[in-house]
Amino acid sequence: MGDAIRPDWSGRLNRTWQRAAAPSLAAVVISTPTNLKYLCGFHGSVGLLVLTSREHHLLIDGRYDFAARSEQEAGRLGPVAIRRVDGRFDQALAALLGELPAGDVAFESEFVTVAVLTKWQTGSPTRSWVPTSELVEDLRVVKDAHELAIIRRACAQLADVARHLREFVAGGLTERQVAGSIDAAILRAGFSATAFSTIVASGPNSAHPHARPSDRKLHDGDLVVLDFGGVLDGYCGDLTRMAAVGQVQANARALVDAVRLAQDAALATVRAGVLASDVDQAARDVLSRHGLGEAFLHATGHGLGLDLHESPRIGRADAGRLIKLEAGTVCTIEPGAYVDGLGGARMEDDVVVTAEGCEVLTDAPRDLLIV
Amino acid sequence: MGDAIRPDWSGRLNRTWQRAAAPSLAAVVISTPTNLKYLCGFHGSVGLLVLTSREHHLLIDGRYDFAARSEQEAGRLGPVAIRRVDGRFDQALAALLGELPAGDVAFESEFVTVAVLTKWQTGSPTRSWVPTSELVEDLRVVKDAHELAIIRRACAQLADVARHLREFVAGGLTERQVAGSIDAAILRAGFSATAFSTIVASGPNSAHPHARPSDRKLHDGDLVVLDFGGVLDGYCGDLTRMAAVGQVQANARALVDAVRLAQDAALATVRAGVLASDVDQAARDVLSRHGLGEAFLHATGHGLGLDLHESPRIGRADAGRLIKLEAGTVCTIEPGAYVDGLGGARMEDDVVVTAEGCEVLTDAPRDLLIV
Repeated sequence: MGDAIRPDWSGRLNRTWQRAAAPSLAAVVISTPTNLKYLCGFHGSVGLLVLTSREHHLLIDGRYDFAARSEQEAGRLGPVAIRRVDGRFDQALAALLGELPAGDVAFESEFVTVAVLTKWQTGSPTRSWVPTSELVEDLRVVKDAHELAIIRRACAQLADVARHLREFVAGGLTERQVAGSIDAAILRAGFSATAFSTIVASGPNSAHPHARPSDRKLHDGDLVVLDFGGVLDGYCGDLTRMAAVGQVQANARALVDAVRLAQDAALATVRAGVLASDVDQAARDVLSRHGLGEAFLHATGHGLGLDLHESPRIGRADAGRLIKLEAGTVCTIEPGAYVDGLGGARMEDDVVVTAEGCEVLTDAPRDLLIV
Repeated sequence: MGDAIRPDWSGRLNRTWQRAAAPSLAAVVISTPTNLKYLCGFHGSVGLLVLTSREHHLLIDGRYDFAARSEQEAGRLGPVAIRRVDGRFDQALAALLGELPAGDVAFESEFVTVAVLTKWQTGSPTRSWVPTSELVEDLRVVKDAHELAIIRRACAQLADVARHLREFVAGGLTERQVAGSIDAAILRAGFSATAFSTIVASGPNSAHPHARPSDRKLHDGDLVVLDFGGVLDGYCGDLTRMAAVGQVQANARALVDAVRLAQDAALATVRAGVLASDVDQAARDVLSRHGLGEAFLHATGHGLGLDLHESPRIGRADAGRLIKLEAGTVCTIEPGAYVDGLGGARMEDDVVVTAEGCEVLTDAPRDLLIV
């Protein structure tokens, strides 16, 4: 476990090397930007981290070189040897690999494109290139103390924004205006950015889980889905609440209530050792009992951390892949139901999985907000 | 050329098929989200477009199914046969390919990861998979009338935000506060989102081209780089202006002036038929003459459109790849110079290349804004 002051870069780097290491391995090339953040604190959009048995190298271009060295001096970048790349990254990688002893090179098959691998192979034609899958992502599933401290703060701040939703939502405003007010509140709350484009989906638009804010004005009788998030020190919080403009139809109200019950059921199922698909099924069962099984168009939740969507997926059992929840995993629980002609509802909180159950980190009232 | 009312989906789809088509080809699989937007107007984050000689198929999941069908009825989604994918995309793709005659399948090698290609190959083991490079991206370089109309509006609105910068920048405010005001102005101006995280880099931070807004307060004597953009109807505008807090050192002022001259030189070089590297060299020559050759840490510009960074790159001549500018290309012209201990400066405008030169689309004053 890292302490809460500084991320445990060395531990993360070494665990990655150990997970990958085979006796035949000379290097592991990490190129997924989020994994670079996680393993050494590098925040640029382009870079390569090359792990070896002796030392770890960070290849970055001139735009980041100075900043990275200052960050390292200040202890905000991990124990990596920085190399400035002035030309092409594939050539710099080939040069570095040329200095290493014989052996295979592992790479991240879920991030490296066919075109990039072809260049790397051309640059180091005698090496064998070994695909890895979720090498670092699997390590990231369980958050360490450093990460949990940040995520707790992010979720608490996001819940605080949620407590003020009443100030931003009103009949007559457009979805876009409401989204703008929520975005401004997220930035005022101290987040460095919104975690995604805020969703404000009203009336008929609420029936589409991925609706984008439009110039539609909120009307009496609308259900309104409010889904928003913020990034704090690199970590994401994600939250959805429901509003209603004036009086809504009884069956729209029933939809919202069913979704809330589905969320309750899913939350009650979360516990270390439980299958993610069982959590999903708990939500799905409730919605099915309310005749809304077909209306639940997405998974119950997703892991949350440096990425807005990361492992584990809290969804239906995937053929042959069972995901057991682990203590220290942070994920969303967000069932929804979407019915054309009636509207849609989603309720979303962020939780950390514990041995006994889960702790809800986004502690804001879940009542339908009537404006 | 598409007209300005509706994108010419059919033309874009057919040109892509014709570019890729070989007699041996049964299908082209397009998976880059931006290329899906361009070719058929689908805006989801996940989808597959499968082009064939007879018809084109769009594979999307339940989240997007209803919205896509309504968009198609409203004429906002191109002539594609929509298939809802309820399980895995690789399986749905294998099923679709199973219905097609024998032949190879082309894919986008710069987007498809090694892991995804492996799944696709497993699903259709008798097909030959042919990598393509920049297949759609090359078509996107020259904007059609529909695109130019949107980009013109985006750039005009962004210039309008720039004209109000004086209201947002002042000594004593933090970089983050200034960035927040600019973000709010971008959304108020009618953009659906900022095109990237706004850069406000003051004093020593201005020496880092990719600095992120911090809690540093703007001080007397600071240079301040203000780099921001907005997304309008899917298209990006991107603009940088310089401010100074009170009186700045003479050599800081000289830095700003040199960068502006470099931009002038680059702008004067842009014309259809000219090499992108010659435009870059024009800016580089001016900065070198001012002793700032080493301080210019990035390329002079980049193409701009559905992506913030797209082809062509306006940079140094890449070994063996000469890029000739074409009329109708939209790109940024943004030289900069970054000197530790002194500060940095960048000046950025968006232009459309014409037969005679270029037209600056972001027509806002370029004078150093003294606050």
